[in-house]
Amino acid sequence: MLPKSWRWLKDYAAASERLVIGLISGTSADGVDAALVKVVGDKPKRVETLAFTTLPYPAEIRKTVLEVSHDGDIETLCWLNFALGELFAEAALKVIEVANIDRKRVQLVGSHGQTVRHLPPNRNSFAIHSVSRVGTLQIASPAVIAMRTGIPVVSDFRAKDMAAGGQGAPLVPLVDWLLLRHPNKTRIALNIGGIANLTVLPAKAKVSDVLAFDTGPGNMLIDGAIRHFSGGVLNYDRDGEWARQGRVDKNLLHWLMSHPFLLQPPPKSTGREMFGEAFLREVIKRANSLGLTQNDTVATLTAFTAEIIADAIKRFVLPKFGQVDELIVSGGGANNPTLMAMLCERLPKVKIRRSDELGINADAKEAIAFAVLAHRTVMGLAGNVPSATGAKMPVILGSITLPR
Amino acid sequence: MLPKSWRWLKDYAAASERLVIGLISGTSADGVDAALVKVVGDKPKRVETLAFTTLPYPAEIRKTVLEVSHDGDIETLCWLNFALGELFAEAALKVIEVANIDRKRVQLVGSHGQTVRHLPPNRNSFAIHSVSRVGTLQIASPAVIAMRTGIPVVSDFRAKDMAAGGQGAPLVPLVDWLLLRHPNKTRIALNIGGIANLTVLPAKAKVSDVLAFDTGPGNMLIDGAIRHFSGGVLNYDRDGEWARQGRVDKNLLHWLMSHPFLLQPPPKSTGREMFGEAFLREVIKRANSLGLTQNDTVATLTAFTAEIIADAIKRFVLPKFGQVDELIVSGGGANNPTLMAMLCERLPKVKIRRSDELGINADAKEAIAFAVLAHRTVMGLAGNVPSATGAKMPVILGSITLPR
Repeated sequence: MLPKSWRWLKDYAAASERLVIGLISGTSADGVDAALVKVVGDKPKRVETLAFTTLPYPAEIRKTVLEVSHDGDIETLCWLNFALGELFAEAALKVIEVANIDRKRVQLVGSHGQTVRHLPPNRNSFAIHSVSRVGTLQIASPAVIAMRTGIPVVSDFRAKDMAAGGQGAPLVPLVDWLLLRHPNKTRIALNIGGIANLTVLPAKAKVSDVLAFDTGPGNMLIDGAIRHFSGGVLNYDRDGEWARQGRVDKNLLHWLMSHPFLLQPPPKSTGREMFGEAFLREVIKRANSLGLTQNDTVATLTAFTAEIIADAIKRFVLPKFGQVDELIVSGGGANNPTLMAMLCERLPKVKIRRSDELGINADAKEAIAFAVLAHRTVMGLAGNVPSATGAKMPVILGSITLPR
Repeated sequence: MLPKSWRWLKDYAAASERLVIGLISGTSADGVDAALVKVVGDKPKRVETLAFTTLPYPAEIRKTVLEVSHDGDIETLCWLNFALGELFAEAALKVIEVANIDRKRVQLVGSHGQTVRHLPPNRNSFAIHSVSRVGTLQIASPAVIAMRTGIPVVSDFRAKDMAAGGQGAPLVPLVDWLLLRHPNKTRIALNIGGIANLTVLPAKAKVSDVLAFDTGPGNMLIDGAIRHFSGGVLNYDRDGEWARQGRVDKNLLHWLMSHPFLLQPPPKSTGREMFGEAFLREVIKRANSLGLTQNDTVATLTAFTAEIIADAIKRFVLPKFGQVDELIVSGGGANNPTLMAMLCERLPKVKIRRSDELGINADAKEAIAFAVLAHRTVMGLAGNVPSATGAKMPVILGSITLPR
């Protein structure tokens, strides 16, 4: 007989639908996104988002998260792991409240945590003293989340894929495949968060047909520039207003487009290590020496995000898949009309839709994805797509922490 | 029905005995201790150690572990987590080989990992910007261990106890209680690793009767001094030879005994943060100004370890429990005859025995303990002793990672 504390696994597997919470804070480190979803079917067949909320990080915490993401000391990381655990738990309790349901009905939490370092194999394939410098670090203690919510938690999703030789990213492709593939349309699911990534879903795709990769920075550089120019008062280019009032500078864009990451063939992943503060400082230095206004700089960075997405599609997707019918956009970038217009311009033959039109809240998509991936772990199903991450095999992602 | 990947939980619970591996690298960071034990009964009733081995850290890794333990950067921590995962997996495979059994017969791994930071609540009870700076960080990625061994792994044992308000240490007391309590003798289980800790087991003790705490440095300062004096050639005082040839200096010992940690009432825990490199440098500075020889300094530090253990017993144990019949010693310090003799001198009425006499390999004890604690997690049983850690309640420790 199964020990009492593990019987929920059996109940979970036997249910036809389950309530699951997905939690994530992205590379922009604004706060914790929490989605409460109903997961229908075992694989699952579909999900319904019952509630979505964001718990903004307190300013001091956000500052500390950004610090440990590009520098910072290990002692700070140690307590921040617990402090973020508290905030992730608070976000989970908040989304339960928003949904107005009984906490006991929620069966599982999937917590991506906050990435503070991601060292995938390809950019670190050199070995020093026969140790390869590969690893990934997402914080927000699952022990704290499980204790505070009273709900089992799946966490540390990226490590297992990397232990299997993968990049540990992107992990959303499996969820894209489950929820967005189409019997006779070739679709691309595009998420524009701090980093932008896309998942190519050919018509009638099997998992092994899926191609997915990070295209490069999404909102990361735009947000960083806005924060810099506003002296930290603004965090992002609301409605793309700054970019709309600027002029795209061909010289700066040309230099940006020469970044070697863009030519690297997929699977590939990137993060704050490559396109973080140091890179932004270099961009702003060049923009200044070219005499660009602040708006011009933001406009050019916005064009850069659009251009690398379009370029990646033309370079890596169209030659292999022939045509793309629809681009399903989610993430904060979907709320930037200037960025969306620049993307349309560059991909005139592709129908661009927000994921909301297909029942997936564009702002909630990544949180929803980690609810689905946690579900997969409990169902004993693999969560990675080897063709997307480069892993040697499909693996069951994450670790499970009991509530008490 | 339980998903296929989780059926082992049911088989595990139904078995009358299971083969479990315990893995730990202590604060001295010499290498990975691996014990392969047969766990008999559900609570369990007893354990038999089938094999024990230590996989020494390569010099470069050990240096890096010590670096990140008192300073170090987060990027190094990130890849070291994976690199240690590989070494912990190697240690697990090595102990299987030593035992000469089929790998498939091993049902579970309990990995303590390598502590690099431990910030328990009491020494950090101040809050900055309403964030309490509490946390703990054990590394050696369980995803890597699980993938390489093909065995489910329980890890991150300390976090849950701390999430329940505890110190996250000591965790061995529950295992002491399970395996060493006696119907009519009051026993103390003493482990002298980098840090020394003791568990008081009154005759016929219930779990709630158990008192346990860190007494302070065990071998940490002795090892550090030997390493310093030998220019890094030696790592510990083999057979207590250095100490035996020195003279204990009363002045230095008196100053050492004035450390405020010693007066702090239990439950209490400590680590490299308090008695690490910085403290050792201060000790050596004082020893020099007092004109002590190297042997005198090592002798005095050895006496310090013995004195704080005896002092803690007299101050916190005897007044509460009346008498102590036996002191069951384990850990590297049990192999130091000078230290053992100093302890005997200071506790003339207590019978001092090595844990080996009671069937528990003194060198393997902590590794055995984490095999037992992993077993408890899978059986859905609590692993902490609230009276030892200060936690608000008993909790199921750790997180489970599946092999694929």
